[in-house]
Amino acid sequence: MTDSMAPGFEIARGVWRHLDTLDMTALTEFTPVRGLRVDVIGLTAKGEIWIVECKSSLGDFRSDAKWQNYLEWCDRFFWAVPQDFPVEVLPEDTGLMIADRFDAAIVRDAPLEKMPGARRKAMTLKLARAAMRRQLGWLEPDLGAIPA
Amino acid sequence: MTDSMAPGFEIARGVWRHLDTLDMTALTEFTPVRGLRVDVIGLTAKGEIWIVECKSSLGDFRSDAKWQNYLEWCDRFFWAVPQDFPVEVLPEDTGLMIADRFDAAIVRDAPLEKMPGARRKAMTLKLARAAMRRQLGWLEPDLGAIPA
Repeated sequence: MTDSMAPGFEIARGVWRHLDTLDMTALTEFTPVRGLRVDVIGLTAKGEIWIVECKSSLGDFRSDAKWQNYLEWCDRFFWAVPQDFPVEVLPEDTGLMIADRFDAAIVRDAPLEKMPGARRKAMTLKLARAAMRRQLGWLEPDLGAIPA
Repeated sequence: MTDSMAPGFEIARGVWRHLDTLDMTALTEFTPVRGLRVDVIGLTAKGEIWIVECKSSLGDFRSDAKWQNYLEWCDRFFWAVPQDFPVEVLPEDTGLMIADRFDAAIVRDAPLEKMPGARRKAMTLKLARAAMRRQLGWLEPDLGAIPA
């Protein structure tokens, strides 16, 4: 991690670290389907999939016209925002985390909307392959860019 | 990668790089179940799981008393050995790769012995979580050792 992280990425980092304390594993910048990239995606030991969208400011939130498209690719959906974010603008039927670059706290749990089994299976495989490939991309940079 | 790799690891590296050219993703040193650690485990885009055991010498092979325990944790099982290895000692109903630290070649395909669906599902989830956690362990070393 560098010291010159963009605000959204600082929040993602805190979220990632917090998910780890919950025994969730996670990836950042994951693409469940072409044209859609999520900030943080988490996977529990039982296979539940969470998406956490990180917004550093109100403008950042307002400019995201497609967040509802994320819902079908997870079992629970959260926002993660900094402490000074006007959280009343966020939809109430979504989860909420307050985060900084070091940690996060879940202040409102997300409703469970289970994905169909076939989609969860495909997503788990895709997560496994993305995480495995990123590892190789770091160890062996001559093998090409790390795909999202 | 360092220049001081153990012989078995050099082979694993070549295997890993070769699997990448087949659009397989892989992890090294993965533990499918307590007490059993495999050298390389690969995952195809369709979810097929391969295990590749890397043996640098005949002595290395002869000292492995539990390789048959690996079979139930994969769909295909391969050995990977260096070019000067006496391959006639290896069981004929297993796959075979010849490898060095840069690449590998499949010289005998492995028979397909499909795992039960529930086991494949559990293994895919475990692979996803292991790969995701290793990534965090590298980026955030204060969060603790990287679990196998």
